[in-house]
Amino acid sequence: MGATLGQGYKLTIFGESHGKGVGGVIDGIPPGISLDMSAISRELMRRAPGNSPFTSARQETDGVDILSGVYQGHTTGTPLAFVILNKDMRSGDYEKSMDIPRPSHADYTGFVKYKGFNDPRGGGHFSGRLTAPIVVAGAIARQVLHGMGVRVLSRIASIGNVEESVFSSDRAQWDKIADKAFPVFDDAKEHAMKACILDARQSKDSVGGVIQGIAFGIKPGIGSPFFDTIEGELSKGLFAIPGVKGVSFGDGFDIAKKRGSEVNDTMCFDQGVITHMTNHNGGVLGGISNGMPLVVNVAFKPTPSIGQPQQTVALRSSENLIHTFSGRHDPCIVPRAVPVVESLLAMVLLDQVLRAD
Amino acid sequence: MGATLGQGYKLTIFGESHGKGVGGVIDGIPPGISLDMSAISRELMRRAPGNSPFTSARQETDGVDILSGVYQGHTTGTPLAFVILNKDMRSGDYEKSMDIPRPSHADYTGFVKYKGFNDPRGGGHFSGRLTAPIVVAGAIARQVLHGMGVRVLSRIASIGNVEESVFSSDRAQWDKIADKAFPVFDDAKEHAMKACILDARQSKDSVGGVIQGIAFGIKPGIGSPFFDTIEGELSKGLFAIPGVKGVSFGDGFDIAKKRGSEVNDTMCFDQGVITHMTNHNGGVLGGISNGMPLVVNVAFKPTPSIGQPQQTVALRSSENLIHTFSGRHDPCIVPRAVPVVESLLAMVLLDQVLRAD
Amino acid sequence: MGATLGQGYKLTIFGESHGKGVGGVIDGIPPGISLDMSAISRELMRRAPGNSPFTSARQETDGVDILSGVYQGHTTGTPLAFVILNKDMRSGDYEKSMDIPRPSHADYTGFVKYKGFNDPRGGGHFSGRLTAPIVVAGAIARQVLHGMGVRVLSRIASIGNVEESVFSSDRAQWDKIADKAFPVFDDAKEHAMKACILDARQSKDSVGGVIQGIAFGIKPGIGSPFFDTIEGELSKGLFAIPGVKGVSFGDGFDIAKKRGSEVNDTMCFDQGVITHMTNHNGGVLGGISNGMPLVVNVAFKPTPSIGQPQQTVALRSSENLIHTFSGRHDPCIVPRAVPVVESLLAMVLLDQVLRAD
Amino acid sequence: MGATLGQGYKLTIFGESHGKGVGGVIDGIPPGISLDMSAISRELMRRAPGNSPFTSARQETDGVDILSGVYQGHTTGTPLAFVILNKDMRSGDYEKSMDIPRPSHADYTGFVKYKGFNDPRGGGHFSGRLTAPIVVAGAIARQVLHGMGVRVLSRIASIGNVEESVFSSDRAQWDKIADKAFPVFDDAKEHAMKACILDARQSKDSVGGVIQGIAFGIKPGIGSPFFDTIEGELSKGLFAIPGVKGVSFGDGFDIAKKRGSEVNDTMCFDQGVITHMTNHNGGVLGGISNGMPLVVNVAFKPTPSIGQPQQTVALRSSENLIHTFSGRHDPCIVPRAVPVVESLLAMVLLDQVLRAD
Repeated sequence: MGATLGQGYKLTIFGESHGKGVGGVIDGIPPGISLDMSAISRELMRRAPGNSPFTSARQETDGVDILSGVYQGHTTGTPLAFVILNKDMRSGDYEKSMDIPRPSHADYTGFVKYKGFNDPRGGGHFSGRLTAPIVVAGAIARQVLHGMGVRVLSRIASIGNVEESVFSSDRAQWDKIADKAFPVFDDAKEHAMKACILDARQSKDSVGGVIQGIAFGIKPGIGSPFFDTIEGELSKGLFAIPGVKGVSFGDGFDIAKKRGSEVNDTMCFDQGVITHMTNHNGGVLGGISNGMPLVVNVAFKPTPSIGQPQQTVALRSSENLIHTFSGRHDPCIVPRAVPVVESLLAMVLLDQVLRAD
Repeated sequence: MGATLGQGYKLTIFGESHGKGVGGVIDGIPPGISLDMSAISRELMRRAPGNSPFTSARQETDGVDILSGVYQGHTTGTPLAFVILNKDMRSGDYEKSMDIPRPSHADYTGFVKYKGFNDPRGGGHFSGRLTAPIVVAGAIARQVLHGMGVRVLSRIASIGNVEESVFSSDRAQWDKIADKAFPVFDDAKEHAMKACILDARQSKDSVGGVIQGIAFGIKPGIGSPFFDTIEGELSKGLFAIPGVKGVSFGDGFDIAKKRGSEVNDTMCFDQGVITHMTNHNGGVLGGISNGMPLVVNVAFKPTPSIGQPQQTVALRSSENLIHTFSGRHDPCIVPRAVPVVESLLAMVLLDQVLRAD
Repeated sequence: MGATLGQGYKLTIFGESHGKGVGGVIDGIPPGISLDMSAISRELMRRAPGNSPFTSARQETDGVDILSGVYQGHTTGTPLAFVILNKDMRSGDYEKSMDIPRPSHADYTGFVKYKGFNDPRGGGHFSGRLTAPIVVAGAIARQVLHGMGVRVLSRIASIGNVEESVFSSDRAQWDKIADKAFPVFDDAKEHAMKACILDARQSKDSVGGVIQGIAFGIKPGIGSPFFDTIEGELSKGLFAIPGVKGVSFGDGFDIAKKRGSEVNDTMCFDQGVITHMTNHNGGVLGGISNGMPLVVNVAFKPTPSIGQPQQTVALRSSENLIHTFSGRHDPCIVPRAVPVVESLLAMVLLDQVLRAD
Repeated sequence: MGATLGQGYKLTIFGESHGKGVGGVIDGIPPGISLDMSAISRELMRRAPGNSPFTSARQETDGVDILSGVYQGHTTGTPLAFVILNKDMRSGDYEKSMDIPRPSHADYTGFVKYKGFNDPRGGGHFSGRLTAPIVVAGAIARQVLHGMGVRVLSRIASIGNVEESVFSSDRAQWDKIADKAFPVFDDAKEHAMKACILDARQSKDSVGGVIQGIAFGIKPGIGSPFFDTIEGELSKGLFAIPGVKGVSFGDGFDIAKKRGSEVNDTMCFDQGVITHMTNHNGGVLGGISNGMPLVVNVAFKPTPSIGQPQQTVALRSSENLIHTFSGRHDPCIVPRAVPVVESLLAMVLLDQVLRAD
């Protein structure tokens, strides 16, 4: 299981890296939304590899074919299905993974769970390519949220040891980086991060990083206590992204080092409206939005695919061996994950609003 | 919504801090489990306040009354309901919270979501007291897991700036701290952490910390890709604990700073069985267990209730004011949260096993 | 599993016939509903046995103890838990059922599913007594629906071969029988039905019947196509009532004998509003309400508990035997099932409205 | 909502009658099933119109394109997506339905629910064509069930007033009609039923009927009490079929006329195994299978599309009018619904087995 996310805005994904394609079915889109296909393509382009030296050299031109749920340019309210056909597949690069699992990939765990029957080519169903349908569903969710005054953005907060620790709730500053391919507030930091990625690439290695997502315009009172918290629902979504190892809100793990007097978000009336004077909690208290921008931090591990020889096993012969895996890989998944994080943020927030529970 | 967690082992909780009591209904317990009530009481005792200077002075003697689902000492397989009646309530301490929301608590967000009708006394349904039914359900889950060879433990990894960063996969070392009220590997670190809490208490302040949970004995192949990952399901559960702001697995946020060559968990055959030589991924790859101990890190913010004056608002009069909240509070929630983290870890893992999807 | 129903108005039930009690947890009640406890008691009284010669001689005085979710007389919006403690249990009557399953009861299927560990006393969790929490949840749902202009009623349409086949959409006629203990339009029919039950009782036998439920005031556009139809959701709920073997809508199974020209519900504008001229479809088309009264028919089998000797088995000794089961039983479950049918109708309709999907 | 059914074997459907196509995503298929594509095609052919004078003249050659979830001829265990592209669409026939709703169709309720944005051509998402993906999912479920010794069959029990009331639990008799396009035990009855359909067609009218489905080989102990009963889950599935107005089990509504002594299914040991001597309950007691063949009856209304003038409304002009709808329609949906009923029976039973709850 695991193909379906959401109750009010429900996405079901399918596909394999080297099969016919990937796609999804979205149930719960409100009827009458005028669908902006170019916005969907733009988001997919941000996710696609092959656009810069910081990502894989593969070319993906992801054309989305909408199969249902749109009539005369508007959403119908009934399920919207779409497919993105696969192209430029070099399965030969990956055939060995059928027998020799790549360390820290899902090759081995998928093999065990599916008893050796899952498609191993290019990671099969576990491939990062499955984030493409997530981006499509996210792009549509953003269009619906837009009509509600909600905007979802994100930035790269760190690559390896290069961090841009400054946080800003200032929307203008965020808007400024909205269209950047590599969204960082400070140009010097951006260059240092890129250098870090190129350095890893040159060493046939990879590097991790942190993405910070933010949503402006969420009203207070959205979400639920305990088992359907905004934090829990968002995490459930975000851990779907291959390579994510941690999710935190507001000040995140740093808040654990602080005292209450330092990080309590105090309140005041500002022109008749209750507002919070700081946002250490990232816009959520007790699982429910408090009206401040919602802030989430997502930690990515370094891409497990590296060009160096690694210790692994041969499943059929039960042998230990040192193997160098070939193939085109991202030295850092973080830049391409930016629209995926935003998509899940948009999807889950819309889901919360539509559930209205 | 938000009262129910799980599909194969399903808990529904209810109650308020100063109402008649708190409790839960568990659906999906396998029939024929010989229930160890003293083990349940022992876990509740670990969670109860009033046991040490590191926690609140309130006395809770949590007697669990099982209402259904047990017959002749064994679980029946049908729903097990239980209630823990409330005692020693001093509502007077809290009455003001009806009008003056405590900063960084759910007082304000609950007020908005429930339109002013939720029970405000002692946090009402948002109270940490609701973790008592979670501990009951966790204690029962642990008994079922025990029969499957799974053991769940945890330790306090940091309090404020005092960290015990060493990680160990060695079960013997973990077993040694299993019965400690304040589980830390190193005694000196434990003392430093306790000093940090007492220091915060003396300043009428509070402090946060990190708990690391671990599960030994999980077989490879449990979990699902994408939206039902072990990480996602666990996070959904763990963010239910009041005060949790971050959840990560294995090396967590630190892995984002590393290179693939440093943190890839390589594999080898060890006496005919595939094992991993390191555990940077915390036992999960692609959402599915890889056979290594499952390791999760949970960040807690400092208790928002502090004895210092804070800026806040009066809802009815729409005034800004400086207020000092009274009441008995934990200077640090972390020690009492230890069994709660273990309980959610046990519940979610059992749920994954029973779903068998 | 099976203890939980609903997504927007979610009930979880628990309990056994001869255990401590039965009860439930309701999540999703809107906040601020002024709860009428006497209305809940009244509905429970309608369901209770011992009130007439047509039902069992057992006395149940079902006092509902609300454990959470109500504050200062209003619903809080957080989970409402309640328990009804058991009294007047004569377990001795039933002890044999542990070894000798009653034909057409769940004794045998429960024994197989729960591997012999389920509570066998008085049917245990399978007892009709579990409909008491359903009636509580239904009574609360009705109060919420009342504020939306929806009223739920029902009538006994047949007992054995005595049928009152006339159908009426006239609300006034329905209102007239709303408070009857044995709701039938025509008095002569009512007497004939009662005679049929007494006749069965005298023969130490039992008899079945059909209840017709109706909901006035449902707006058009509620429900969903395919797998979340009003019909499907209602059936899922109604088949929870012990003894139900069939559920149909509008003309039900009779419609299968008709031609389209006879039973198509044609439409017209009536004072500017679209209305249907007939209601053969019982208010639902394509899974969605059409604005006409929602009409559902529920078939009950004769109570399987009869006072005559029956062929059965002894589980432990693997013997065939002829056994006469003792105990106090209803010769016909239909009269007591009236409020249960209404309760499920109310719960499911409210769920559909609150899901708003 | 409403596109998804099941928890252990989960189908999500999409599509419109005159859009690009219809299809589905199935999550939960066990890995390693050798997929028989010709069996899928055969089931689709049974459902397709244009095969006989008893059905619509439209030609549908439903080619199923599998997009994911199959690798080297076996199911992978990950989501299986498929699409059936639409052909032979004459939208012109239906354009009027955008403004003039067909009586007893979902035209009006869909219009209200989706605020006029749903695709009206040929019924759009509400079309019977959406049963094609159900048949695909059912054909796959049957292949999985086959490996568990379960066989699903069905027969036409009545068309209009022509009933074949005899019931048989004899598997040989059922096997005999398994391959019939119009499955009826007795040839004379079959001819009478066909004459009834042709008669309705000649009158530009339509007629309803009842299908009885049966599953052999279900072990005792499958299913759950109360809200996840086999009956409730099956009904939820079966009411998805356009035109279904009633679902019953075993003797169905007739059992309501009987006495307990007549219809109690007594038990005995037969060669050491507990069996039931009759099957009035249709293989289910207390929501759980008892080991007897599972028997379900499904009532279909006459196709609402008839060639006679009918009273209806014009939405835009708010006028009443008499309208004769054109288009190619089935005078009776029952023959084509046979494989759809079997498919839902197979899907839901497999779901129950895989949920194992």
